[in-house]
Order: sequence, then structure tokens, then C-alpha cells
Amino acid sequence: MAQSTVQFDHGAAAVSVPTGTLLIEAAHQAGVEIGQPCGGQGRCGRCAVQVTSGSVRRRSTLRLSPEDVEAGFALACQAVVEAEDVAVFVPPQEEIQRHLTTDRVAAEVQAPTGYAADTMQTIRRVSLTLTPPSLDDQTDDWSRFQTGLRQQMGAEKVEVSLPLLRRLGGILRQGNWRVTAIMDRSNGISRLIDVSPNLTPDTAPVWGIAIDIGTTTVTVWLVDLISGKVAQQISEYNNQIARGEDVISRIIASGKDGGDEMQRLVIETINELIDTACIRQKILPHAIMKATVAGNSTMIHLLLRIPAENIRLEPFVTAVNHPPVFHAHELGLDVCPDALVDCLPGVASYVGADISAGVLSSEITESDQTTLFIDVGTNGEIVLGSSEWLVTCACSAGPAFEGAGVLHGMRANKGAIEECWINGATYEPTYRVIGGTRPRGLCGSGLIALLAEMFLTGVVDKAGHINLTIPTSRVREGEHGPEYVVVCAEDAQDGRDIVITNVDIDNLLRAKAAIYAGFLVLAESVGIPLESVERVLIGGSFGKYINVEKAVEIGLLPDIPWDRFSFLGNTSVKGAYLALLDCHQRDRVKEIAARMTYIELSSDNTFYEAFMSALFLPHTDLSRFPSVEAMMVTGG
Amino acid sequence: MAQSTVQFDHGAAAVSVPTGTLLIEAAHQAGVEIGQPCGGQGRCGRCAVQVTSGSVRRRSTLRLSPEDVEAGFALACQAVVEAEDVAVFVPPQEEIQRHLTTDRVAAEVQAPTGYAADTMQTIRRVSLTLTPPSLDDQTDDWSRFQTGLRQQMGAEKVEVSLPLLRRLGGILRQGNWRVTAIMDRSNGISRLIDVSPNLTPDTAPVWGIAIDIGTTTVTVWLVDLISGKVAQQISEYNNQIARGEDVISRIIASGKDGGDEMQRLVIETINELIDTACIRQKILPHAIMKATVAGNSTMIHLLLRIPAENIRLEPFVTAVNHPPVFHAHELGLDVCPDALVDCLPGVASYVGADISAGVLSSEITESDQTTLFIDVGTNGEIVLGSSEWLVTCACSAGPAFEGAGVLHGMRANKGAIEECWINGATYEPTYRVIGGTRPRGLCGSGLIALLAEMFLTGVVDKAGHINLTIPTSRVREGEHGPEYVVVCAEDAQDGRDIVITNVDIDNLLRAKAAIYAGFLVLAESVGIPLESVERVLIGGSFGKYINVEKAVEIGLLPDIPWDRFSFLGNTSVKGAYLALLDCHQRDRVKEIAARMTYIELSSDNTFYEAFMSALFLPHTDLSRFPSVEAMMVTGG
Repeated sequence: MAQSTVQFDHGAAAVSVPTGTLLIEAAHQAGVEIGQPCGGQGRCGRCAVQVTSGSVRRRSTLRLSPEDVEAGFALACQAVVEAEDVAVFVPPQEEIQRHLTTDRVAAEVQAPTGYAADTMQTIRRVSLTLTPPSLDDQTDDWSRFQTGLRQQMGAEKVEVSLPLLRRLGGILRQGNWRVTAIMDRSNGISRLIDVSPNLTPDTAPVWGIAIDIGTTTVTVWLVDLISGKVAQQISEYNNQIARGEDVISRIIASGKDGGDEMQRLVIETINELIDTACIRQKILPHAIMKATVAGNSTMIHLLLRIPAENIRLEPFVTAVNHPPVFHAHELGLDVCPDALVDCLPGVASYVGADISAGVLSSEITESDQTTLFIDVGTNGEIVLGSSEWLVTCACSAGPAFEGAGVLHGMRANKGAIEECWINGATYEPTYRVIGGTRPRGLCGSGLIALLAEMFLTGVVDKAGHINLTIPTSRVREGEHGPEYVVVCAEDAQDGRDIVITNVDIDNLLRAKAAIYAGFLVLAESVGIPLESVERVLIGGSFGKYINVEKAVEIGLLPDIPWDRFSFLGNTSVKGAYLALLDCHQRDRVKEIAARMTYIELSSDNTFYEAFMSALFLPHTDLSRFPSVEAMMVTGG
Repeated sequence: MAQSTVQFDHGAAAVSVPTGTLLIEAAHQAGVEIGQPCGGQGRCGRCAVQVTSGSVRRRSTLRLSPEDVEAGFALACQAVVEAEDVAVFVPPQEEIQRHLTTDRVAAEVQAPTGYAADTMQTIRRVSLTLTPPSLDDQTDDWSRFQTGLRQQMGAEKVEVSLPLLRRLGGILRQGNWRVTAIMDRSNGISRLIDVSPNLTPDTAPVWGIAIDIGTTTVTVWLVDLISGKVAQQISEYNNQIARGEDVISRIIASGKDGGDEMQRLVIETINELIDTACIRQKILPHAIMKATVAGNSTMIHLLLRIPAENIRLEPFVTAVNHPPVFHAHELGLDVCPDALVDCLPGVASYVGADISAGVLSSEITESDQTTLFIDVGTNGEIVLGSSEWLVTCACSAGPAFEGAGVLHGMRANKGAIEECWINGATYEPTYRVIGGTRPRGLCGSGLIALLAEMFLTGVVDKAGHINLTIPTSRVREGEHGPEYVVVCAEDAQDGRDIVITNVDIDNLLRAKAAIYAGFLVLAESVGIPLESVERVLIGGSFGKYINVEKAVEIGLLPDIPWDRFSFLGNTSVKGAYLALLDCHQRDRVKEIAARMTYIELSSDNTFYEAFMSALFLPHTDLSRFPSVEAMMVTGG
């Protein structure tokens, strides 16, 4: 087969590839990292590169202007090498900032009131002093050990893995027949997790971890299972991000190699977090004896390397909502090899264990109040309920509020505009930038604020169309149609205008409409008006930073008194933490997942109508947003 | 480090090794196979090679005469390469004949009378026709599958491995929601073993295997678990033989690399047997859904790669007598990956699962008769008992009856003298050779016959000393002391005299004395005279070919009427087969193992006295052997 040479400008060695190879694959081979937010579908345009010598064949130029193509630009995921050698310039990528967000989470999580490891924890440490064998007592090591256990724990059968059984005899002798065993007792099964020579003081911690695998961010809490205290909290971007920003892109990417790479990336992320947490705590990762995991259904499938493709194909079915427990070594998790990994149960393809865990930790079911629970991360999941009932749905809102699908959108990193105001007379904006630097783009909260301000000042009409007739040069016809210039080139970090376009606004409207329509469908499904919701609980990292007032103004959140809204932060990892500590809470998650009535929106006409009506600012039916209506009368 | 070149004369390429390398290791590197019956301890002398150029340093010359050393001979396991390059001649090794002994076992084993898979078999095949998922029923694959199972099998929790769970969704769709599941239900746990697309006819077999791992021979029976019929029976030498003939040598050899090689060798042996059986049966190895394993404690430890060293060190303790079930893929067994491998329980270090299985299949506990059960293979294990009680012991008889530790001893292969008679007047021998060829050596049954004949004709006295004064040139002072020439050089296959020496006879006397002393200790432990034993059941491959009369004459077997003796063949694989088929029989093996009272002979003074008294032909106390005494009066 004919070979061509591809030279990237990153100091990487040139690679030789067969004709027909995608540029993105050549980049992989050359060790040049190019982000693929849409997972290689040619949709996002983020993998554009410039061919500076030679030519390539472009399968799709959807995201490129004729001028771009003229200048040699091509989407790396859509361009193949032809017979010719090529040189490729890779423009600076949106940097994935590695931020360990320990400083951004609540300082200390206290053990739940009344926590008692004795009655709640499945993990138990048992100190054993055994009689050494002799010619008069030739009992085999494993029976001798089990007899010792029985004397401490009562009669029961104990499961043990082959690798641990192999090590047992050596450990017993090393400890001179005094050893410490770590046992797990759950679902009626007693399992030996670890044995160490010598006896351990009763006050020493036994470690566990709660893990939340978000599409964007992975969080690990290191927990002392005896005291219940959280010793370390640590978060990091999911290494899978480079292969797609949303779950759909990830599922598609996982299909390419049976999920090997996706599993490797998320396990790498978790292991890095564990490693950092353990270094800070001055313990070894192998001292971690149990892991409880929450995450959306796709993330759980990819973690377990279970094929996830049916999640995205009608009728949208997961392979498994409630996985069995597995041993850490089966997944490559760098903790005690026989530690059990307990993935919490999800409800459906798009309402996963993160939501079950969120409902648990937000204590919706502990109250008679009608509560709306929203987790707007990369997906939008909604639960409505109380102690009596729970309904849930997932809105395919898309990741617009995470900055994807928006020309100058970005994640909530340094340089992102996170808050914005527009002067109603001059149409001049004022903004606040994360990190206090010059702006680079707009993150979710910034976009919500911008859209609300544009609407209230008349820069856009209720349909989201930019009004080109207002007297300001900030409004103009741009390359992608009408746009509003938020930051002029001279003030921007990159020396280019930061704008929001009509296309961006359409994407944001669709996202917010999907979420609001979800609220309506849930409320209607149980026959209560949305206004009668007594509490709105907002989970997820997105929720932490948004301005409720502005979110109501654009019609993203329902127009009810602001004091009914609470921000809970990462409810998923909190739920995993509670389930890690307390077997009764673990049972409750299962019960919650089983009790939630899932409403599939894709087959729901009510949803479609509600969605169409919500594609306006704030809504077609202004009576649903009385506070906004009042403001329009006042302001307009 | 200095390197030297070693050139073996086997057409192998010369190898370069560091100074200090053992010749046996150099041979391994060169791919030249040299047997090590004693496992590299320099005890057996079988790995002698001749250094024809250059010189080596000998650590031990225990088994070599000064003339041998003069001629360049060295033990490959005890000689290290020095700075000089060497050439090595490897004398023809005792060939390990590969004989598939299907032809030597009973033609057909019938299923046990009254066998009913429905009530006895833990493996069950379940045909499932599931409702496909739809937007109205988005149940996850695993729950859907479990619901189908519950409808067929009743409500229960099902365990599944991660690899099988990964494949489930694909299989369900491939079979268009009609699939066949193989379930195992044992010890209160239901496990999914396999799922295949489409439905299987109810009459189709479900395959299992019974395995007996002997120190010398491994046997596999391929069994239809539905009908209970044995479809294939197949045996092969244990590939571990090259690393030592007895369990002690194997344990020592396993210590060198943590048991990796020993496990690999036995798994290789089993997989080859499975492969052959499956080819003959025209099925795939992955169609085998369950394996039940018997074997002595060392063999089971080496199979599982559990450290076995404490078996040979006082106080002689196993790591585990009753291993948990493991999955085939954990051991590398080439059957269905999730098939359970059930190792039957043993009693002690030297009374293993082969004996528990043998007691089961020989039905000792089904009768009120006092029964003596002997399994003389590479080790000698004895059980005495009835339906009421069971005592057992192991005699460190050594492998003399398998031809090891005897100058011209060999296994029962082609060329082995298996029967022998001596003319009382001329002292000339007559013999029968396996395969009808010229003789190469003496196997166990031949040695027993020879010794009996020598004793009865006065070639040896009751102490086993060769009488050099008898008028025949067959008796002479040889290199190793007094010897009797069984075959003269011109009649022998190798063109050298086949002799039996005083040293050989001492070894045989020690072996037979150990076994007979074991009988006595067991009988005395329960206070019954050995003569009152009502049945003697002989298991093991060794037992198949020996002549009871001659075994009594040398005092190996007790002197009771011959009609009380029965030869049962491989009772171990039969026991494994019964346990494979019937969960009640499986429970019985466990019960039998738990009920057997083990008597440790190494700490038993009675044994030592009984052993010393038995070091004579047939015994110090002739009244114990009235029939032999009568013959001596008659014959002498």
C-alpha cells in the first residue's frame, strides 16, 4: 500500500502512514494531541488544522468557510492523506486546564450524624490471633484462618479470591499467626478483602473511596470508613474529554476499539486522583478497601467496558442499570486488588446512578414537600417528587451551557466571562472574568447572563433574533450571520472579537427549552402545576455558579420565588459517599432507583409541544413568567 | 560478567551463558530436554551428562563413580559452567512414552443407576424467549434477562462475571432475544456460566469434565451432564514429570519461580487431554461447562499455583484442603471461561482429594464390612474403615515401585519387565516384557515379582541381602555392591546388563515396609487385627497390574485370602466423575473428607517400630504371613 509522510509542527517526528489515513490518526501516531469534542464526527469543527504543504482529501467541510479551505484548513477527523507527503500546522488548542478543585469544594464534610461503623459499614477489620499448626494440629491454613474468623464474627462461609488465597499462608507465617483481616459483608455474602501480617490498632482508619464519574469532571473522596470522615476531596477533568464532550460522542468513540481506550482513560483519571489523594493523606492506594461509584449510565458502562452503543440507539436501552459488584483488579483500579467496586444503580439510559445518588443525598424522599431536582451538567436530568412519589426524565439539552456548540463558548476556566451586564442605553457590556484576566470566551453562567441581558435590553427579541437596527456598532452582520460583540479584539486575550451569534443563541434556546419542557412534562405527568413546586434543588457543577434570577429571565428555570432554590453542589459524589458508609443508605439508593418512574421524552408528544413553546425568551406563554413580564413592563 | 559457550550434541545451537550457570539451565536455554526425576537435587543421578570438551565445576558427585568423573560425567543439575567453553554429550534419556491410555481403561462407563440431571446436576440449561425492548419497555438487558430466568427457575439472585456481562447484550440481539443460558446452582448460589444465541434442543448434551491429576498420570473424562454418560476417557503423563518424579521434588521445583512453571505444565497437560477428547467427540472445548478435579494435595496446590512448600516442611500443613470454586479462566483451563472448577476436598498434606474421591467411588462407606483401601501410586495412601468410621494415613513409600531409586527401574512402558520367575535350581530367570520387545528395565510389578522370586529361591535372604555364595554367575559383586543379573547384555535392548542391586532391594524393602507398617498402624489405631479386614480395595494405576500373591510374598500386602482383594483402577477420577454429576455425591465427598481421622505417621512411634519390623522378607514376625511361611517350608 502507498505510504505518505505527515509532518506535524509540534516538534514530533514525521510519521509514515498509508494513503487514506485520517489526519487525526496520523496525529495519534505522531503523539500530537488534537481535541475532538464531537468525537470525530466533523460536527464541532474544533479539530481544524492547517495543511501547509501538500494536500489532503476533505470528506466534510461543514465547519469550514470557503476561505478556510482556501487557506489549507481541514478537519483532522474528516481529512485523509493522499499519495502526497504533507506538512500540517496544528493551531493552539483550547487548553484543557488541569485544576484540582479541592479549594473550590466545601472545606470539610462531617460524617453523617449518628454514623456507627459497627452497624452500618459493610467493611470490618478483624484482628486474629491463631494457634500455630503442629504435628497434633495439622489443620490447613485456610480452615485455621476461617475458624479464627468464625470465633470473632460468628459462623458463616467466607469467599476468597485465588490471588489472596495464594498469599494467605505467607502472611500468616510473616505475622507469626497474628494477622489483621479486612472483611466485607454485604448482600448476605462475607468476603475476605485483605489480610496483613501483625495486628492493627483499633483506632487506625480503614479507607474507602466515593467516586463520581462525570462526563466532564471526575471526583474522588477519600473516606475513613471507621469514623466516617472525608479526609480528601479531589476532582479532575475526565481524560475522556479529548475524545468527545458529550456522552454520545464518547459512545461513538468507544465503538472503535470495543471501549478499551475509553476505559483506560477514565481508569487513568481515577487512579491519578487516588494517587494524589493518597499522597496527601500519606497512605498507600492499596490501603483502600472499598469503592462506591456514581455516574451517568454511559460513564458506568465505559468504566466497566460494557458496550454502550444501545444507549444511543432507539429504544435507548442500557446493558445494565445495576451492575454486580466487581473486584478492583478486574477494572485496573489502583486500590487493594480485592476491594469491591460497587457501582450504584441507575434508572435508564439517560438517568443514571448519578441521579439516584443525587436523589439520595439531596434527601428529596425525606420530605413531604414537592421538590424539583435538577442536575444540569453535560446532560440535563430532572427529578420531581417527594417522600411519596418520584418521576424523572432526561432532556437532551446538549452541552451548550458547558460552552460547546457556541462559537466563543468555553468551560468555566480562567479567562471565561462568568457574569455579564448590558447597559440598556448604550448597549455596552460589563463583565466579570474568571481569574480576573482578559477574557477568552464565555462559559455557561456567562452565556445565561448575556442572553438575559440581551433580552431585557432588546438586543435580541423574544425569538432570540439579534436586532440589527439598534444604535450600536456592537451589533453587526458577521461571518455566521447577525452577532453581538461582547469583547472587542483589543480587550480580548486572543486579540480577536468575542461575539455571540444568532446561531449560538439558537443553540442556547434549544438547550434551555429542552430543560424547561422537561420540567413541564414531569409536572403534568403527575398533574401538578409547576408553580406549586415547593423546593428546587440544583446539583452538579454547573449549578454551583449560575445566577437564578438570570436563569429565570431566559426561561431556563421556572419563575417561582428565589428562596425556594438551593444549590447543592455535587450531589452525586455525596450520594456515593453515603452509600459507601452506610449499608442502609446503599439499600435506599437501590430502592430510589427502583421507585423512580422514568418518562421517555423522545416518544412524548407533550414534550415536543412544550419544547416548541419554550423556544422563546422567556416563553411563548408569558403568564408562566410573571416576574419577567413585570420586569419587561418596567424596563421596556 | 564472563560468558562461556555451551554446545550440546543434540543439533541444538550453542548457547552463551554467564559463568556459574548450571548445565541444566544452559540445556533449557538450548532447548535440550534433560529429565530431572529428583527435581534438581542431585539425588537421582538421572541427569548425568558427559563433558567432552572443556571442564565444569561439580558441586556434588554423589551419584557418580570416580571413573564416571574421570570420563567427564557430571550431573547437569549440579555442575556449573566455568570460564571455559564446553561441549556436552547428553546420553539417551529414558524416554517418556506418550501413551494415550484410552485403550487400557474400561470401555464404557455407564451413568450411575437412577441418575437424574434434574435433581442431581448443578448445571442446568435454560431456554429463554424474551420480549424485545421498546420505547414502552426500556428495561436494561441484564434485568430483562434475569426476569426471563426467574420465570423459568424461580426467584433468585444470579451472579455473573464481568466478561460475560459485557457479551450479554450482543448475544441477546444476535439470537433475536431467544437465547440458551447455562446456569450453575450450587451452595445456594446461582451463577450464569454461559449464554449462546438461539435455542438449543433439550436433548443436546451439556458437557462437563472429571479430572484426576496424578503425580505421574493425568486423566480426563468427558461427560454429558444431562445423560450422565462418559463420552471420552483419556490419560497422559503429567508434563511436570520432567521436573521431578515425586511430590517432594515437584514442591522444591515449584519454589524456584513461585510455581508458575509447575502450573503451566499441568494446565498444558490437561488442555492437551481436553483438546484430544473434544476432537474425538467433535465438540469445542468451550462447550465444557463444569470441571471437577481430584488429585493429591500437592497436585491441587500446584494446579492452583498456591504455595505448596509447607506440605513438605514439618508440621506438614497444606495451604488449603478444600479450595473454593474458581472460574476456568483464572487457571487458564481451556473450557468455557466461566465454567466452575471444583477441586474436591482433601484431608491432609499427604491424603488428598484423590483419596476422598477414591473412598467415595469405592463405596467403602456404603458397607458394614471392614475395608482396607490402598492407593499406591507415586505415594502410598491407605484408608481403613466402614460405614461407621474411617482412619487414614500416608506412607512416605517413595516412588521405588514406579521405578525410581532403582538402578534399572523404569515406568510400566514398552520394554519394562512386568513379571518374572526364577528357577530355584539354576537361578535362571524368565520374564515377560511389556510390548514383547527386548527388555530395557524393570517396572513396579516386575520388581515385586523379582523380589518375591529371589526371596523364595534363596537369592536373597530375609534381610534382603544377595547371597553371593549360590552357584550362579548371575550373582556377583558389582560396581554398587552385590547384584543379581536379570538380563544379560546380549539380551537387553541397550546392550548392557540389567541388574538388581542390594541398594535397589533396600529401597524396595523400605517402600514395602512403609506401606505395610501403615496398614498395621491404622488397624491398631482402631484396635482390630489386620487379618480381620474383610475387603482390600486397591486403587491407582499401580494396583492395576500387580500380582497379589507376589505382593504378599514380599510382605507388601497383608496375608489374607486372595478373594478379598479387588482392583478398582483409577478410583480418584471415578470419584470426581460422581461428584461432577451429582450434588449429593459432591456433598458426600466433603463429608467423607471431614470424617476421615488422619494419623500422622512421622510423629508416631508405633509406626517406626512397625516399619523396622517390616524391613524383612516378608516380615520379622512370620506368623503374620502364614501362607508365605507354609511356602517357605514347602519350597525351601
